[in-house]
Amino acid sequence: MTTQTHPTIDTPAGPVPGDAPRWYRQRHSQLPSHRYRDIYDRVDVPVTERHWPRARIDRAPLWVPVDLRDGNQALAEPMDPERKMRFFTMLVAMGYKEIEVGYPSASKADFDFVRMLADTGAVPPDVTPVVFTPARRDLIARTVDSVRGMDNEVVIHLYTATAPMWRDTVLGKDARAVGDLILAGARDVLEFAADLPRVRFQFSPEVFNQTEPGYVLEICDSVTELWQATPQRPVTLNLPATVEIATPNVYADQIEYMHRNLARRESVILSVHPHNDRGTGVACAELAVLAGAQRVEGCVFGNGERTGNVDIATLALNLHAQGVDPMIDFSDIDEIRRTVEYCTRLPIHPRHPYVGDLVHTAFSGTHQDAIKKGFAEHRARAGATGRAEREIEWRVPYLPIDPADIGRSYDAVVRVNSQSGKGGIAYLLATEYELDLPRRLQIDFAGRVQGHADGTGGEVSAAELRSLFDMAYVDTVESPDVQLKDVRVIGSEQAPAVAVGLVVGGRTHHSEHGGADLVRAVVAALAAAGRDIEVSSLTGHRVADHAIAYLEYRRDGRTGWSCARADSVESAGMAAAVRAAAGVVAA
Amino acid sequence: MTTQTHPTIDTPAGPVPGDAPRWYRQRHSQLPSHRYRDIYDRVDVPVTERHWPRARIDRAPLWVPVDLRDGNQALAEPMDPERKMRFFTMLVAMGYKEIEVGYPSASKADFDFVRMLADTGAVPPDVTPVVFTPARRDLIARTVDSVRGMDNEVVIHLYTATAPMWRDTVLGKDARAVGDLILAGARDVLEFAADLPRVRFQFSPEVFNQTEPGYVLEICDSVTELWQATPQRPVTLNLPATVEIATPNVYADQIEYMHRNLARRESVILSVHPHNDRGTGVACAELAVLAGAQRVEGCVFGNGERTGNVDIATLALNLHAQGVDPMIDFSDIDEIRRTVEYCTRLPIHPRHPYVGDLVHTAFSGTHQDAIKKGFAEHRARAGATGRAEREIEWRVPYLPIDPADIGRSYDAVVRVNSQSGKGGIAYLLATEYELDLPRRLQIDFAGRVQGHADGTGGEVSAAELRSLFDMAYVDTVESPDVQLKDVRVIGSEQAPAVAVGLVVGGRTHHSEHGGADLVRAVVAALAAAGRDIEVSSLTGHRVADHAIAYLEYRRDGRTGWSCARADSVESAGMAAAVRAAAGVVAA
Repeated sequence: MTTQTHPTIDTPAGPVPGDAPRWYRQRHSQLPSHRYRDIYDRVDVPVTERHWPRARIDRAPLWVPVDLRDGNQALAEPMDPERKMRFFTMLVAMGYKEIEVGYPSASKADFDFVRMLADTGAVPPDVTPVVFTPARRDLIARTVDSVRGMDNEVVIHLYTATAPMWRDTVLGKDARAVGDLILAGARDVLEFAADLPRVRFQFSPEVFNQTEPGYVLEICDSVTELWQATPQRPVTLNLPATVEIATPNVYADQIEYMHRNLARRESVILSVHPHNDRGTGVACAELAVLAGAQRVEGCVFGNGERTGNVDIATLALNLHAQGVDPMIDFSDIDEIRRTVEYCTRLPIHPRHPYVGDLVHTAFSGTHQDAIKKGFAEHRARAGATGRAEREIEWRVPYLPIDPADIGRSYDAVVRVNSQSGKGGIAYLLATEYELDLPRRLQIDFAGRVQGHADGTGGEVSAAELRSLFDMAYVDTVESPDVQLKDVRVIGSEQAPAVAVGLVVGGRTHHSEHGGADLVRAVVAALAAAGRDIEVSSLTGHRVADHAIAYLEYRRDGRTGWSCARADSVESAGMAAAVRAAAGVVAA
Repeated sequence: MTTQTHPTIDTPAGPVPGDAPRWYRQRHSQLPSHRYRDIYDRVDVPVTERHWPRARIDRAPLWVPVDLRDGNQALAEPMDPERKMRFFTMLVAMGYKEIEVGYPSASKADFDFVRMLADTGAVPPDVTPVVFTPARRDLIARTVDSVRGMDNEVVIHLYTATAPMWRDTVLGKDARAVGDLILAGARDVLEFAADLPRVRFQFSPEVFNQTEPGYVLEICDSVTELWQATPQRPVTLNLPATVEIATPNVYADQIEYMHRNLARRESVILSVHPHNDRGTGVACAELAVLAGAQRVEGCVFGNGERTGNVDIATLALNLHAQGVDPMIDFSDIDEIRRTVEYCTRLPIHPRHPYVGDLVHTAFSGTHQDAIKKGFAEHRARAGATGRAEREIEWRVPYLPIDPADIGRSYDAVVRVNSQSGKGGIAYLLATEYELDLPRRLQIDFAGRVQGHADGTGGEVSAAELRSLFDMAYVDTVESPDVQLKDVRVIGSEQAPAVAVGLVVGGRTHHSEHGGADLVRAVVAALAAAGRDIEVSSLTGHRVADHAIAYLEYRRDGRTGWSCARADSVESAGMAAAVRAAAGVVAA
């Protein structure tokens, strides 16, 4: 191991505003940043061969949820036994095969829960519970007592802080004495657990990321030697970033150093346990897996002390989103969310990756338009290949995964406010009410919705959209002074004609028109009665038990839209024409 | 550029459970992960010289908040003008020097806000507003209109999506046509903005991270050539990870490729705009800065479409925590938080880095104990060096920064529930009530608190702790059958003695005892009256206008604690002794 050198990249930004270019006008803050030291000034970060930047993840690591640790990860109200059991049951149902079930020596509640699992046989045979203990003889004894009699494979997890700040301030021991303490604890584990039928061991040098690499390597190697790690009974070495203090590439370097230098590597399960103080816990875990980690400890949705442990739901779904089976089931993420929120009494943030309320949602017009086109392309591709929409490759812009994969519905994807455009509006009307608006009508309507939302300031629901639509195009006639009384096809099959009876302004008009087109006949009859409209376009379709028509017209030099509902598309078209020609039309 | 090769690291975990070792029992999920493709299968990620993994960040990039973009970053209720102005004022007060003020062509509300800034001169002279526009001639014209007349330097920011999925599905144009569209837009920008006195230009190839590197490099170079970028008037090239789809090292590779291959590099401000779909937005920004980025766009606390933009508050405070001046002021983070929550109507999660309610808090006993020791070491070190506690290096375990740096109080750091130990309890009683409990009393009391909290299940406040303390040790005597009537120092200075008058069980006792120690005399008098206690330890100290004594005793073979408040430490000690000897002591 050599000491890291740090070539500074060439950047116009100077270290102080004085020598910075003109565009860099930022000023020194009031914060006392001189009180902190960079990781590189604290420990000797190893230079490894550094293979991790060009590696890729092609399989899921072993996920180990630690949600049930003492205090249940720093909850103001730790879970009661009912909540703890519900959480545990959920973890099993999701497919976790190794689950930390508690810190039995921390409190009576923790001990009792683990004993209850042992006594009731509540842990399925293929699930390995992990129990967590500090390196103190009496606490190790109590920990082993908590799992005695369990048929499952069990992991006894021993931890001790190894970083200088912890040795000096918390333990009051030098590096050698801490090493002795750990080995004594490891011997105690062997002694007390000797009679357990199926036991494996785990060791965590707490605050690994702030510990001297050479020192922690030596300790880990001593522990695996003491525990006689073999490929048949590997030892888990878990290397926590207990408090995040550096960019995630530094953690990756630290993990790769261990990966390449550990003794008995093939007998070690290399595990990581990142925290999220710098908001980079997910990145630390991913880069650590690139660097050789095979097992990740974290919490579902990232609960935990302070800013939380790494979020193993996000990690798993990140793999899914790049084509790697996460090996854990999230096909009903909302159900998992409900359980986690119930048990932890903490909310999931609306922008939480994958599970937040707003993360499969687009408000902006350009994004909604793109998503709508993406959905259309998706359906067309499914149709062209004859395969199910849920099976074919996902290529919808702005949505990294298909919300349906995790049990979310498409309907929640598009939401409308004053910033939305025609795409989202049309999408909502189409999915919620089967209204398939022509493109120019979408544009016209979007303007009206924006005006409405600008006034109210808030979000517009699909129901409000439909009511705005009806007000604007269907119920436009305040005093209907034109009524269609009678339409009959007359004449012969060879020479069809249509007879139309209208009441306009109280006066009855009868007229007959050649051709079989009823709408055209009505428009002609309106013209004959002095209500001239020019039909620019007319489309329509069925909706459930009725039909709707969208009619674009010009009247007195102005363009407008008129829509109507009726039993058939043809009747709806005639009604739309009559409305277009009626007296007072709302703006 | 050559195609990336991906050496797979040697790991015991097989790609499928079939060939996995025994400890890897995870099973395939139900998720259709085959629907997704890895980034490496989508675009040709460039292999660069890859200097970024060994670089380090030694200065803050230029931060550009984009919180005010149209829809105010996908809020269900976009900010009204009052909220928008309040947010803008906060950004200026924090020290941001380049601020995106809107997307003026997106809606009347956005246009009006920018015009208001221009007309009222609300932007300080050293702040550069940025306005955002798509590459459409009429929208560019309207965008330039929104800032016309402003005295400030202004940035016109042109964007167009360049990734294949967007070209094909959204724009319906091939790569060349998209390039032409961008250059036409860039020309329109030049044309309309020609008469603006102080203007700079910015271009974003939207979805940069999913765009072919060679293609996007060519487009960026064409744009900087067209705009005649110079070191005196640099062009900002902003390279968004519009939708996160890969581990953050991939983005770093993409940025370093651009950094090393862009034409006119010294005339380009290389900017990034990460999103957070994979929960790695902060990591993407940090690794991108290591790779050569000089400017970061994001939102304060990470608001934004779906999972949000990168959180520029976390980025800035991450720099602070490693000794680099963030160049933005967060000395009252709670005030910033209140403004952001008011304006966005979105909550800050309790575990949000730096600003969340729970992030400077420890519930677990071991962490509380370590933090308490860390604070003690901190105070001792300040005392030893004669420097202020707020100035010296921060080395408190489990707290990455001093909460006081960002205006948080220490009092919020330690919270107590059933999982807490003596450290946190003692810390709270000391900071809130100046009670300095001896260590063995801390242990005794922690057991009582845990019992209480196990029963109630919830958090225990400092006030509750004090009331539990009083009930357990001060108000322990249910029917006080011992009263101290009279204590007088008698005898000479050379041969002092103490006369004690006691009432025990209704009977008066007078006795005299050699020596000047009042407490010792009272204990002896109690023994003489048949109430024998053995004092194991006695300490005390002043608290505001009174004193408190902590007395550890043995009586009838059992150990107990008795405390009392009085005018002086001595009087409190006597009272504690009398309580210890009194009839019925609560368990």
